[in-house]
Amino acid sequence: MRLLIVGGAGFIGRRLLERLAISGGREVLVTGRSPHPKVSLGAGVSYRQVMPEQTEIYADLVDWADEVVDFAYSSVPQTSFDDPVRDVLDNLPFNVALIKMASERSLRKFVFVSSGGTVYGHPLRLPIDETHPTNPISPYGITKLAVEKYGLMYWRSRGLKFVALRPGNPYGPGQIGGRGQGFIATAMRQALDGKPITIFGERGTVRDYIYVDDLAAGIVAALNSADAGSVLNIGSGVGIDNRQMLDIIDKMTTRDGITLEVLTAPDRGFDVSANVLDASKLRNLSGWEPKVTVESGLEKTWSWMKENRA
Amino acid sequence: MRLLIVGGAGFIGRRLLERLAISGGREVLVTGRSPHPKVSLGAGVSYRQVMPEQTEIYADLVDWADEVVDFAYSSVPQTSFDDPVRDVLDNLPFNVALIKMASERSLRKFVFVSSGGTVYGHPLRLPIDETHPTNPISPYGITKLAVEKYGLMYWRSRGLKFVALRPGNPYGPGQIGGRGQGFIATAMRQALDGKPITIFGERGTVRDYIYVDDLAAGIVAALNSADAGSVLNIGSGVGIDNRQMLDIIDKMTTRDGITLEVLTAPDRGFDVSANVLDASKLRNLSGWEPKVTVESGLEKTWSWMKENRA
Repeated sequence: MRLLIVGGAGFIGRRLLERLAISGGREVLVTGRSPHPKVSLGAGVSYRQVMPEQTEIYADLVDWADEVVDFAYSSVPQTSFDDPVRDVLDNLPFNVALIKMASERSLRKFVFVSSGGTVYGHPLRLPIDETHPTNPISPYGITKLAVEKYGLMYWRSRGLKFVALRPGNPYGPGQIGGRGQGFIATAMRQALDGKPITIFGERGTVRDYIYVDDLAAGIVAALNSADAGSVLNIGSGVGIDNRQMLDIIDKMTTRDGITLEVLTAPDRGFDVSANVLDASKLRNLSGWEPKVTVESGLEKTWSWMKENRA
Repeated sequence: MRLLIVGGAGFIGRRLLERLAISGGREVLVTGRSPHPKVSLGAGVSYRQVMPEQTEIYADLVDWADEVVDFAYSSVPQTSFDDPVRDVLDNLPFNVALIKMASERSLRKFVFVSSGGTVYGHPLRLPIDETHPTNPISPYGITKLAVEKYGLMYWRSRGLKFVALRPGNPYGPGQIGGRGQGFIATAMRQALDGKPITIFGERGTVRDYIYVDDLAAGIVAALNSADAGSVLNIGSGVGIDNRQMLDIIDKMTTRDGITLEVLTAPDRGFDVSANVLDASKLRNLSGWEPKVTVESGLEKTWSWMKENRA
């Protein structure tokens, strides 16, 4: 089985490769915009630099592949708010072209990594299942949702075996933080640098944090077991607010002689107050479930952060 | 009250201007991409050629305006299917930039003319109300839906007084037909040219046809009465399949000595089989209702077609 992972040399992609190496049986090609991947992708994994506008190369790669996992995205919620037109131009044309190409071939599966943290918008109920209305309050959430709609359209009209995954907030070793994404990584880095961490609102926001290896396992589960045309949350089902999270992190940093300084700022317009995902659909169809507790996941992340503080 | 109508010199825009002239009280400026509007826009209406990329001019115009009606769209469902990336590039950046601009000013209302015929996709129930899931099966429907999401996002985050209207299939005098849109106009023109009309599937598709003056009245009703953040269907609530429609048209053409020739082709992947809209939300809030029966509307359309066959 030949698997093409588009934009797969990032934080999540690398852990997905480890997970795939364990399960075996797939020949893997990763593409990205860098000349070389910044970290080792593991034995037997090929890497190729392809720019988004090189659609003819992508056509050949999709021809080669039996399966595609699509991570390609070049914005995050916060930057998308500053320039929503840039967010459209950087993300939609490429993903639409890739999905259209895929619809003209016979793939076993096309998995798009969407965003469970942003496509739903303000929650009407918690935890949020996949039938919850989708009214994003960030441009990033809107374009992620639009890409899902293209995939589902080609599933309905041409039988593309499209699956959209909606992960919660991933965290774990390898995440850099900053740019308004990766609250845990950002908090730990600020602690190591002796700088304060800012939360927005008295207790900040409630999020569904999913350890990166659990997310990678969820992606593999979906790749193996999800029905074409399905949309699947991947989350822990547990909501943790920023204040609670910082209390846990502070215990770890204090052990190392570092006290976390926390600043409070007013709510930002583009944050949903709470996001907790109901992932029972994926659990029921594949047996997948998150295995790493938040304490254990944070310990691993803190250890990695200390070793990689440069 | 100053009203900016973006892309307002088209088929629906012109009838909207007539309706606005009757109700009075608004100073109207229409923009479009043509150097001059192709038809008279009526007394007291200004026209200005502005290209979509001239965002600084649009910034000035939005500064000038108290209200905006946004018709700007340069694709139709059928062409969008041939080139979904072009559909993204031609429609999203401009509409997103316009809505963002509007969100930075204090407008009384921003009305976006979306598409009740395409945003819902295959119906789960008929008639379709505004809470029906939105899973478009054309790229055109996806980008229309995305523009709605931007407007609603800026309503939630910045208080933009955004309203999305979802009309059914408009028809009436002034519609040209062809390009896969305007079934009635296309059928009448084919009849006048002695050419056959093709329907897809044995009875074709079921559509909610709304006479253009009723649609224009609905837009004015929404402009005057709709709450910010609302999404409103505008339709007749009556479903008519292609075969039924051609039977009615054939009675008119036969009176003029023309027999309509009908060809049947297989279903197309990008048509929904049926689309009938429940417009009770707009009716209840504004008292608006469609006034023109399909027979009467078709007579007016046929008369106009005969007079304007060149």
